[in-house]
Amino acid sequence: MIEPVRTAVVGLGYWGPNLVRNLAELDEAELVAICDLDQERLALIGRRYPSVRRTTQLDDVLAADDIDAVLIATPVSTHSQIGLAVLEAGKHVFIEKPLAASTEEAVALLSTARRHGLLLMPGHTFLYSPPVVAIHRLIASGELGDLLFISASRVNLGLHQSDVSVVWDLAPHDFSILRYWLGETPKTIKATARACIGELADVAFVDLEYASGPIAHVELSWLAPSKLRRTTVVGSKKMVVYDVTSTEPVRVFDSGVQLRDPNSFGEYRLTYRTGDIVSPRVDAAEPISLELRDFCHAIRKGSTPRASALVGLEVIRMIEAVDESLANDGGRVHVSSDLPAAVNVASR
Amino acid sequence: MIEPVRTAVVGLGYWGPNLVRNLAELDEAELVAICDLDQERLALIGRRYPSVRRTTQLDDVLAADDIDAVLIATPVSTHSQIGLAVLEAGKHVFIEKPLAASTEEAVALLSTARRHGLLLMPGHTFLYSPPVVAIHRLIASGELGDLLFISASRVNLGLHQSDVSVVWDLAPHDFSILRYWLGETPKTIKATARACIGELADVAFVDLEYASGPIAHVELSWLAPSKLRRTTVVGSKKMVVYDVTSTEPVRVFDSGVQLRDPNSFGEYRLTYRTGDIVSPRVDAAEPISLELRDFCHAIRKGSTPRASALVGLEVIRMIEAVDESLANDGGRVHVSSDLPAAVNVASR
Amino acid sequence: MIEPVRTAVVGLGYWGPNLVRNLAELDEAELVAICDLDQERLALIGRRYPSVRRTTQLDDVLAADDIDAVLIATPVSTHSQIGLAVLEAGKHVFIEKPLAASTEEAVALLSTARRHGLLLMPGHTFLYSPPVVAIHRLIASGELGDLLFISASRVNLGLHQSDVSVVWDLAPHDFSILRYWLGETPKTIKATARACIGELADVAFVDLEYASGPIAHVELSWLAPSKLRRTTVVGSKKMVVYDVTSTEPVRVFDSGVQLRDPNSFGEYRLTYRTGDIVSPRVDAAEPISLELRDFCHAIRKGSTPRASALVGLEVIRMIEAVDESLANDGGRVHVSSDLPAAVNVASR
Amino acid sequence: MIEPVRTAVVGLGYWGPNLVRNLAELDEAELVAICDLDQERLALIGRRYPSVRRTTQLDDVLAADDIDAVLIATPVSTHSQIGLAVLEAGKHVFIEKPLAASTEEAVALLSTARRHGLLLMPGHTFLYSPPVVAIHRLIASGELGDLLFISASRVNLGLHQSDVSVVWDLAPHDFSILRYWLGETPKTIKATARACIGELADVAFVDLEYASGPIAHVELSWLAPSKLRRTTVVGSKKMVVYDVTSTEPVRVFDSGVQLRDPNSFGEYRLTYRTGDIVSPRVDAAEPISLELRDFCHAIRKGSTPRASALVGLEVIRMIEAVDESLANDGGRVHVSSDLPAAVNVASR
Repeated sequence: MIEPVRTAVVGLGYWGPNLVRNLAELDEAELVAICDLDQERLALIGRRYPSVRRTTQLDDVLAADDIDAVLIATPVSTHSQIGLAVLEAGKHVFIEKPLAASTEEAVALLSTARRHGLLLMPGHTFLYSPPVVAIHRLIASGELGDLLFISASRVNLGLHQSDVSVVWDLAPHDFSILRYWLGETPKTIKATARACIGELADVAFVDLEYASGPIAHVELSWLAPSKLRRTTVVGSKKMVVYDVTSTEPVRVFDSGVQLRDPNSFGEYRLTYRTGDIVSPRVDAAEPISLELRDFCHAIRKGSTPRASALVGLEVIRMIEAVDESLANDGGRVHVSSDLPAAVNVASR
Repeated sequence: MIEPVRTAVVGLGYWGPNLVRNLAELDEAELVAICDLDQERLALIGRRYPSVRRTTQLDDVLAADDIDAVLIATPVSTHSQIGLAVLEAGKHVFIEKPLAASTEEAVALLSTARRHGLLLMPGHTFLYSPPVVAIHRLIASGELGDLLFISASRVNLGLHQSDVSVVWDLAPHDFSILRYWLGETPKTIKATARACIGELADVAFVDLEYASGPIAHVELSWLAPSKLRRTTVVGSKKMVVYDVTSTEPVRVFDSGVQLRDPNSFGEYRLTYRTGDIVSPRVDAAEPISLELRDFCHAIRKGSTPRASALVGLEVIRMIEAVDESLANDGGRVHVSSDLPAAVNVASR
Repeated sequence: MIEPVRTAVVGLGYWGPNLVRNLAELDEAELVAICDLDQERLALIGRRYPSVRRTTQLDDVLAADDIDAVLIATPVSTHSQIGLAVLEAGKHVFIEKPLAASTEEAVALLSTARRHGLLLMPGHTFLYSPPVVAIHRLIASGELGDLLFISASRVNLGLHQSDVSVVWDLAPHDFSILRYWLGETPKTIKATARACIGELADVAFVDLEYASGPIAHVELSWLAPSKLRRTTVVGSKKMVVYDVTSTEPVRVFDSGVQLRDPNSFGEYRLTYRTGDIVSPRVDAAEPISLELRDFCHAIRKGSTPRASALVGLEVIRMIEAVDESLANDGGRVHVSSDLPAAVNVASR
Repeated sequence: MIEPVRTAVVGLGYWGPNLVRNLAELDEAELVAICDLDQERLALIGRRYPSVRRTTQLDDVLAADDIDAVLIATPVSTHSQIGLAVLEAGKHVFIEKPLAASTEEAVALLSTARRHGLLLMPGHTFLYSPPVVAIHRLIASGELGDLLFISASRVNLGLHQSDVSVVWDLAPHDFSILRYWLGETPKTIKATARACIGELADVAFVDLEYASGPIAHVELSWLAPSKLRRTTVVGSKKMVVYDVTSTEPVRVFDSGVQLRDPNSFGEYRLTYRTGDIVSPRVDAAEPISLELRDFCHAIRKGSTPRASALVGLEVIRMIEAVDESLANDGGRVHVSSDLPAAVNVASR
């Protein structure tokens, strides 16, 4: 067992209380302080954890000797500023997704973390979701064969954000999952979107192409008749459907098609195969708990967490590529996977 | 009751026998002859209709005085040549979808039909499918409000075609339906595709933008773990899900979102509404029978069929736009809706 | 607004904390005290409600002048004894379902409540579930026509109870719902059951016949591949499917069958009708909150709550009829709906 | 390959044409003649098989030297008389389900067949349905463990029969399947039913108990909001759901419950296990073709077909037990599995 990481949570809005609750229950962490500008929120959340310090001042957190790491769950526009302050104060930092509001901000965070030898981890919780991990294993083991394409839908009615588009709100989930599964940054991205209500896009269709072959499609919307969280992964040997809303979130189809006699002239013979369908038992563990455990272990053991700073950076680059494509008639945008000079040494 | 149209069917492969069977049962038509190069097919299909003439020679059909109209269900590459021959022989013509293998061919067919005052009708059967018609009525009546976007998936495992891509094979269905529902040619089209097996695209993601506002997305694939025929139509007042594979092919969701107090400063207040969901009873009539009836009525009464030659032309233009986009890095392609000079008089 | 009812909750096991939480949030109630033999449970639950008195002694609750009503969520075998003590102490009482462990005990509770002019209410929460209420309305309004039959399945894997059979555990839900919907005690009950694991029945099939015509069937099981909570209500005009596990818990089918020309001799002509299917929007209110509100209103206004003591008594009688049938080769058992002499004055 | 069995089909109503079509395509059979009282039906069906003799006279069939076996698809009330005539004429006989209108008739058929050394086979087509066979294999192999209980629903809107109740119409399917899966006649049967429309029961709930332990429940109805063909088989090791209406007709759940430490005193410890769910690939072969092949093989090789005469007899006994129960207040009826004296030599 590692020595518990002494933590503080900054930001107690929608997501922060989930971090608080999980940290309080984790053996690997100790919850030392919570911080929010809103006294009432502070009192409400703090009531259940009488021994946890409460403060409205970020500086109290930064100055505290008994805090090793700070978890940030504030609005995206503040991530960079608070994150840099935490790092400069010599503490490890966990920042809710998306890591920052721009590639530039993300790079600043990465290089600062590297300079200080501190951990910077973005909160891509889905990378700790048991179904996502199970599918990663199916891909990595070769059971699916070569990945041919992936098609994802993440739509429901609401909740429109007032400050960011549906792409900034929902795409980090799918983009981080794609990055995790494929282990590769897309070569190009293009998108189509519309702002149906208000002035920010609330529906978007995003196409991604990968250098190794696969293409992917992501449909995002705050306007839909019913909730859909369905991703189809088509491999050359098997296919998988990942559906968060189902009691069987992972379904593996032993189906496929093969070119027969590829050498025959002009002939085009295919054999289709439709075999068993398996819904593997998937662990019911809470992703956020696994995520925070990975954070603590990475701090104590110097390991790189699954949701690494680089994943966080690439997700931002992908979102910016979508924005750039939308600003340019939906044309294809090249996505860089170059490591910025400032972080070109293997960073955690 | 109109006087029955005397018909012949050319091509008895996959679809032709369906035309034969329906014509044989239709009061509005008389099936006079069937024609195919394959003697065996001719005998097999003809056995059930002893009074129908059989021939392997297209010329027999063209020369026959007792034939008013010819229905063509041959491979796409032959549509234009056979269609022109039929029109030049002074007979009305029905051509299975897609109307032709290129815009050029389609325009030639249209102008020839116009010149001879004959009917040219493409076989876009889906425009006669009761669920598609029901949704058209919902849109036209204003019950859905303004159309915001449409997202369609038409995927299953197989059947790869040896001569055309998945776009030429499946897109005519969705493109003709979109044209029927929106009454508008898309302004631009762009696409992403991949040839996973063989050398022709077997998965494609197509984005369409319409001048009046809506955007649409169509996913097409011959590679999928299970059959999906699902189209979501999102209007400003209601939303509809059209699912061919369901026992409830049309579902109307009385759900939506509204900007409240749009004049308030900086505020972004939305109200979400989730009401009843209705699966209206949809007629079980066979679309192909309704389609052929429309063909016969258009001939006898001089009316324009719902699946008009112009719809057929525009579908070809849309498919060609997809091909052009794919050939140009997936960039946006402008889709012309100009009437070619040769057919600029209102054509049937 | 009524004057808040001052309450205490006795028993903080599985269900008690739900009562505590809802009472604490209800305007109509004031939570004065909580009581449990287990000091730790008491501390754990009480921590969130610092102003609420805690005690391990029931007598403290009974003796308190500032408590009007007591809610009992202890094991079934103790319901009667604690309930009688509460009533003898001059306080209103709410007892979790099932009301008591036998008809004899239930009658004692009813007559005691009547003698003291106090309210006795069983916790049949499902009678406050919005879907159940919506279906009650459909039946009562005549929209379904005459009720022909009802078929209910309540099965899942687990949780075996150590002290009662699946009938005592799950049947109170369906029996109270049937009583509410039909407003009638069944004439006869018969059952088939098996103890697959352990010595208490864990699967049971129960048949009910009603004097007014309808029959009903209830399937109960702790052994099932997946959770099923599905009740079909077949009326002469419409049919309803109630499915707790669905996002559309109520579905109304405008389907039916009619005898045509009933006077024709020997002929048996039926017309089948299949119309729209509607999933009405159902309120998302928490049933337990509505239930406790009804309890408080009944106390303050002297009204009879929807889940009346008589409903509680009849549910016990129905369960006992099942047990009697099982003890007698599964034969039909008459169910009495006579009011016991001791409670023959209209009791609340 | 066996020598083709020369066959005639008697009765060309709803089911007969299916027998005709399959016999015409089967290598193991030769279709020699078809027989129906209705000249028009005879002409309509016969048109596709010009070489097949047509007759309205059963005697023509009985007297024909070139006919080895007769398949009967006439109304139930005529099964016995026609079947006996066929056997007395020295021909093998296949009789659509149910085998006869009473146990007495069925016994007469069996003893006559035995006396003449001829095959008598009832048309329980479901025993040749690939999903039913797949589940039989799962049971027989012990993969499900001990069978605990089976619950089956076979309901839809229509089609009311004018001459028999829903039990005689639908129960033969489930009863023959149960007989096949369990290899055992139920010890007792009891039922509840109602005639909602007309005078014959159109909804019925049937309970069955087996000497070896399992209980079963069958719900049958011509009145239901939607078609349901769902059977749950619960074993001590695994559970299976069989759903004819699904694209995955067989689903195997690796779920169960176990008593732990059964020796501990008074303790009741269970462990629940929820594992993978598998939808095995099931062959798409047409059951009726497999059934007729079995019929031909049984004739040529002297083997006992899966749907044996004894199965046919027991299904009749089970249906009669349901009728007897309904006539006696729904009480339990003992079902005999004794072989009638007249057929006590192993009969085919």
